[in-house]
Amino acid sequence: MDDELTIAAMLRRAERYAPDRPVVSREPDRSVHRTSWGEIAARARRLAAALLGLGLAPGARVATLCWSHRQHLELYFAAPIAGLALHPLNPRLHVDDIAYIATHARDEVLVVDESFLPLYERMRETTPFRQVIVVGTATGDAIGYEDLLAEGDPEWQPGVLDEHTTALVGFTSGTAGRPKGVAVSHRAVAVHSLSSALQGWLGIRDTDVLLPVVPMYHALAWGWPYTAALLGAELVLPGPFLDPESLLELCASERVTLTGGVPTVWMGVLRTLDADPGRYDLSAMRAILSGGSTAPPSMITGYAERHQLDLVHTWGMTELMMGAIAELSADLRHAPAEEQRRHRLKQGRPMPFLEIRARRDDGFVAWDGESPGELEIRGPWVATAYLDSPDASAQQWTEDGWFRTGDIVTIAPGGYVEIVDRAKDVVKSGGEWISTPVLEGALMAHPAVAEAAVIGVSDAKWGERPLAVVAFHPGSSATADELREFIARHVARWWLPERIEIVESVAKTTVGKFDKVALRRTFTAPIGADS
Amino acid sequence: MDDELTIAAMLRRAERYAPDRPVVSREPDRSVHRTSWGEIAARARRLAAALLGLGLAPGARVATLCWSHRQHLELYFAAPIAGLALHPLNPRLHVDDIAYIATHARDEVLVVDESFLPLYERMRETTPFRQVIVVGTATGDAIGYEDLLAEGDPEWQPGVLDEHTTALVGFTSGTAGRPKGVAVSHRAVAVHSLSSALQGWLGIRDTDVLLPVVPMYHALAWGWPYTAALLGAELVLPGPFLDPESLLELCASERVTLTGGVPTVWMGVLRTLDADPGRYDLSAMRAILSGGSTAPPSMITGYAERHQLDLVHTWGMTELMMGAIAELSADLRHAPAEEQRRHRLKQGRPMPFLEIRARRDDGFVAWDGESPGELEIRGPWVATAYLDSPDASAQQWTEDGWFRTGDIVTIAPGGYVEIVDRAKDVVKSGGEWISTPVLEGALMAHPAVAEAAVIGVSDAKWGERPLAVVAFHPGSSATADELREFIARHVARWWLPERIEIVESVAKTTVGKFDKVALRRTFTAPIGADS
Repeated sequence: MDDELTIAAMLRRAERYAPDRPVVSREPDRSVHRTSWGEIAARARRLAAALLGLGLAPGARVATLCWSHRQHLELYFAAPIAGLALHPLNPRLHVDDIAYIATHARDEVLVVDESFLPLYERMRETTPFRQVIVVGTATGDAIGYEDLLAEGDPEWQPGVLDEHTTALVGFTSGTAGRPKGVAVSHRAVAVHSLSSALQGWLGIRDTDVLLPVVPMYHALAWGWPYTAALLGAELVLPGPFLDPESLLELCASERVTLTGGVPTVWMGVLRTLDADPGRYDLSAMRAILSGGSTAPPSMITGYAERHQLDLVHTWGMTELMMGAIAELSADLRHAPAEEQRRHRLKQGRPMPFLEIRARRDDGFVAWDGESPGELEIRGPWVATAYLDSPDASAQQWTEDGWFRTGDIVTIAPGGYVEIVDRAKDVVKSGGEWISTPVLEGALMAHPAVAEAAVIGVSDAKWGERPLAVVAFHPGSSATADELREFIARHVARWWLPERIEIVESVAKTTVGKFDKVALRRTFTAPIGADS
Repeated sequence: MDDELTIAAMLRRAERYAPDRPVVSREPDRSVHRTSWGEIAARARRLAAALLGLGLAPGARVATLCWSHRQHLELYFAAPIAGLALHPLNPRLHVDDIAYIATHARDEVLVVDESFLPLYERMRETTPFRQVIVVGTATGDAIGYEDLLAEGDPEWQPGVLDEHTTALVGFTSGTAGRPKGVAVSHRAVAVHSLSSALQGWLGIRDTDVLLPVVPMYHALAWGWPYTAALLGAELVLPGPFLDPESLLELCASERVTLTGGVPTVWMGVLRTLDADPGRYDLSAMRAILSGGSTAPPSMITGYAERHQLDLVHTWGMTELMMGAIAELSADLRHAPAEEQRRHRLKQGRPMPFLEIRARRDDGFVAWDGESPGELEIRGPWVATAYLDSPDASAQQWTEDGWFRTGDIVTIAPGGYVEIVDRAKDVVKSGGEWISTPVLEGALMAHPAVAEAAVIGVSDAKWGERPLAVVAFHPGSSATADELREFIARHVARWWLPERIEIVESVAKTTVGKFDKVALRRTFTAPIGADS
């Protein structure tokens, strides 16, 4: 009776305490659909009954190929409260990868947006689901989402579940090797929502209006659908429209107070704001969260100085949803502005009940803000293994159960984490490390530069040297020498990249990060000869 | 490895993330001692090692007879992280009750303030502890607190504990029948801290300065010592000095932002503020929490109108620490002032993951704000049984595991709980219910009335009738008729008490609530004859 940290308890909370709080969702025709947590909860319970009516056994997996919208939200609750596990698939992956992941996860049912049916057609031979459900018009042997829901008993109520039951399955985006899956328990979702909603981190409360730009198929949209339900906050879902204008429109019309996504999204949004300042009324916005990779400092100051908007660093992973937010702790509230600014540029402090340490070859590093090591983390919502992957698990978790994040970080007093680099991205030159996010940030501070990504290329003399891939704003440009001269003000001379490649647009992964694997494929010629 | 919801994790949090945040404590000589969470944590770890050095087995109980001070705080962490259970005894109970409780709880060790040694002397024959430890000067076979601590290994670190392990034991104050004990797990403490610190409830963060007036021997001081550690907030402990002047001095000098206690404490504080408005600088205060029994509306408006202070209703019990806080939900933020006021007078909404319902003989009542029933509650930090008391447990918990609170309440839409009365205090007159807190509030709104308590006395015609016991402010008075005329503006005529007894001061329990058991003993003559 003690075990109430379940998604059913979170949904009951929304239904009983915040039945009239709005849930807003963009439809495929761009219209804005308005419903409420009361309606979402009632439909989710009915959908849970209907899913069980398909004859699924406890723990069976229900996959989705969906944008962020109200039906996906209903599924976020319906499957877990039915004792099933929801598995949001990333529709932007290659079809072979999607098929591999769905097979590896043993997904039995697929819920697919009508617009993704062509994608599904390309994998149906290799990935036979027991049942396919279409959000939209039914076709062939697939049934319609509303038809399925109508078959559910509206009076159905969830039974008692152990909080350690798997509620969701998520896969890493797989930029390094095969995608790996993690099981997320009811308890993990619940404790993550409690801890990440605390003041000092986000301070989410029922008066907030949350718009997760990070998709519901990626890191569970940072858990915001659940946190919003638990707190009775308003939730705004953008559907398939993730372009800057659509997002800004929605933020203004719904008076969004918190939004979050990857830095490349916010670069595009900043360009749109810069092009027409004052067009969108964002006066309700408390903070724009940026996570998934490091945001360039010039973007953070651009939002602050040109638009009076607070772009806040956050750090998370598929293996743990949100982990840290760069809010200032009490000790720093009265610190000099420059010290505050330096801390705001870090990834932030881990939330309560997350524990961190950073390791190098000879032991753990001091929390001095200077010594780099690989970040290790544990806590009630940190995954403890990959699904059916004992080898990968043994590699990624320490013997005493801490998750090895692959991020090279420093930790400052008070627990401020700063990512120096991804372990696999850091450039090792002459025995020293060059931080690619720092170089990228310096390049993106140049007024002509829209995007910059740095990779290491092998070098006969130094082992590795940095190579920069740069895209300019339309109508702008600069020479390689001008760029080197510009960034030399901010970084050591031996960090300056000998090679700077100009491109139209920097390649990105399916979740919008710079695709360094693709960049390495494109630019592999060693530079030892001509440097 | 998933199970990190332990007090050891909370203490590590304070030590690593907020080592310099202050902990302030009044010493027996009234001086103010300043230390930090880093020091408290290091000493608590060392004390844990020393306690284990006494040869205690896992789960053994360590009792305290202490005021709220820094050593008590160290014990709050030391015993639980050592796998022992801390049992704070209420020194204001009768010595026979204290001895009964300590025996019933099988306490093996006692930590006692030097000032409580005379009390201990009166129970030492009936309650033989293995070891007695004195906070102050050692005496006889008792050892000194600092001497014990010095024996602990400063490098000792807590081992892994199941979060369901008992961390603390608490006993109800026992106004009805024998005191009953509850075991509080690490998990209960942890989830309570997370949920009760959320914005929309208290919104506790690291910049807060917390002063729990509610003693550490009562309802675990609402869990604030733990919540402060988890969030890195400053903690101020008042020692033995709970008089209004001492509390106000400390609130002003330490710039306290949140404080909490029972209504009778805040009545005294309000009189002191009224006597010399502007003497104490309380500009840092965000809210004064009042819980344990219902606060009279005139007191809430007195604080607001005369001192611009926000007195906020809260509701809790020994069986669950904090349960609800009367903050306004999003829906009410733009409601008319009168509707907001009505909701502020209620006990509030239960925190996330607490679930409530109210029952009357024929089933559960509607959440209409009007239908009264007995409040039942469950959740991750609600006790599920009394210690070694199967009969009392069977009576107080429903078959499906909900705790029967004994409070008669209404529940309004959105989950707003309003206590109509304690089940055992409500006056049943002519088949209808008269709410004693409403009558008391109406009486205390009269300018001459300092305190008012209402009890039911048996009546030949009506079954029961209300009897009011009233104490006036010094130098003020009013006749019974004047009082009846005054309250007739606020309550139905048939609620008016025929008997109004004037006393110097209304009897109070050891935790400062009106002692209705004692009042019933004093005023038992039936009133049917002369009414």
